[in-house]
Amino acid sequence: MILLKIGGGKTINMDFIAEDLSVLIHHGEQVVVVHGASATRDEVAQKLGIPTRTIISPSGVSSVYTDDDAIDVFLMTYAGLVNKRIVVTLQKHGINAMGLSGVDGRLWEAQRKDVIYAAEGGKVRLITGNLTGKVEKVNNALLKLLLDNSYVPVVCPPAISFDNQIVNTDNDFATAVMIEALGIKEMVVLFEAPGMLKDVHDDTSIIPEIEKEKISSYLEFAAGRMKKKLLGSQKAFERGVQKIYWGDGRIEHPVLNAIAGKGTVIQ
Amino acid sequence: MILLKIGGGKTINMDFIAEDLSVLIHHGEQVVVVHGASATRDEVAQKLGIPTRTIISPSGVSSVYTDDDAIDVFLMTYAGLVNKRIVVTLQKHGINAMGLSGVDGRLWEAQRKDVIYAAEGGKVRLITGNLTGKVEKVNNALLKLLLDNSYVPVVCPPAISFDNQIVNTDNDFATAVMIEALGIKEMVVLFEAPGMLKDVHDDTSIIPEIEKEKISSYLEFAAGRMKKKLLGSQKAFERGVQKIYWGDGRIEHPVLNAIAGKGTVIQ
Repeated sequence: MILLKIGGGKTINMDFIAEDLSVLIHHGEQVVVVHGASATRDEVAQKLGIPTRTIISPSGVSSVYTDDDAIDVFLMTYAGLVNKRIVVTLQKHGINAMGLSGVDGRLWEAQRKDVIYAAEGGKVRLITGNLTGKVEKVNNALLKLLLDNSYVPVVCPPAISFDNQIVNTDNDFATAVMIEALGIKEMVVLFEAPGMLKDVHDDTSIIPEIEKEKISSYLEFAAGRMKKKLLGSQKAFERGVQKIYWGDGRIEHPVLNAIAGKGTVIQ
Repeated sequence: MILLKIGGGKTINMDFIAEDLSVLIHHGEQVVVVHGASATRDEVAQKLGIPTRTIISPSGVSSVYTDDDAIDVFLMTYAGLVNKRIVVTLQKHGINAMGLSGVDGRLWEAQRKDVIYAAEGGKVRLITGNLTGKVEKVNNALLKLLLDNSYVPVVCPPAISFDNQIVNTDNDFATAVMIEALGIKEMVVLFEAPGMLKDVHDDTSIIPEIEKEKISSYLEFAAGRMKKKLLGSQKAFERGVQKIYWGDGRIEHPVLNAIAGKGTVIQ
């Protein structure tokens, strides 16, 4: 079983991805897809006049401030627009895709964080009413039910909290919990770059292999989004994944190329 | 098995509905929910600067003109925002709800209408590129799989066409096809009125019972939305339903009151 994680960038080519998945599935591989939608979310939020607000934790990690309006935009773009467009593209390529957000059938259950702290202008501020949470439980039975009946689950945030709130959640962490629940050993991560680059301005400077024990040593060189991806991979290894393929989601054969080691392989 | 159809109005009270469904389900009843989201769709479309456009067929039936932008808004509001908010409200009341649009697992498959005709300023105009279709096939196996495993399917448009386009579809007609596929005998329809009214300005003028053979004779008295609901009920009877309860979705015990005959019963 392979978990495919698709980034939320606008130039990811879903048709190319679907072609490859179709090959894998017809060879008997089971696939679970998890996707982002950050670019679409930011765009729609902007148009609706409720732009995405970022907060920085005292330790320097950025996250999205999530009030009820932000949850609405989240539902519209992740669970609605992007999820269903992906489902239909997969269907077009003969894959029986089925979209699910974390709230459907309590797929991703999270512990809500009542209060969080944010660093603002040199001060630490307490923020309440932030609808975020950490996924602690996955509805494994539901995923298996779908997989056993030949559906390809296409999963996205938000999650549902134990006290039944819709909560924004760290997609990487949720994915890692799901990896553990399903016993997944291989993950393919596609985004808008050829892999981990030595020089972010030089697409040919791909680092072909990273030892999983050395992820931390790459953290200091990594730019914002790459840093997040490295941390995400670290979480997946902690939950039992054995091999992670990073690859370019914009080119032909994005999945097969990644598995062939043409991006960055972490193991 | 009961099919519950919830209108797309803003004053429908989902908590009240969920309380009743919870009672029915704990008494062993199986429930499939179908919902609209027209008010939210129009609101979001307006905010995004792509307001909902209505076209009138030469025979006088109005429908929504659906281009790619309109499909985006459709996905955002039906499959995203409203569907997931309903799922979570049901979850809050202990119901294991699972949201599905018509594209998920090809739940609602439709024949696309390539061209349609619209009456405009006394002329009939040919309209192309309108993404609509008529549902002809329901993925019954998927619904049964979910129901047999104690999930409550919460279903909404759009549908997927046989040629893999996302298409807007007549919700009533799709519901009727689903009723036939599942062999459903009873349907509850909740909206923003106490039932079918003799006088639309007098909420106490409820017509308690309508014979299904006489639906046509009520059509001439019915205002726009009620006319559509009458036609929808007619379609459901054609597909095998035996009893339809119309009731007020804004009051306490909306489902139980409707079943107790406090709205309009059609049979």
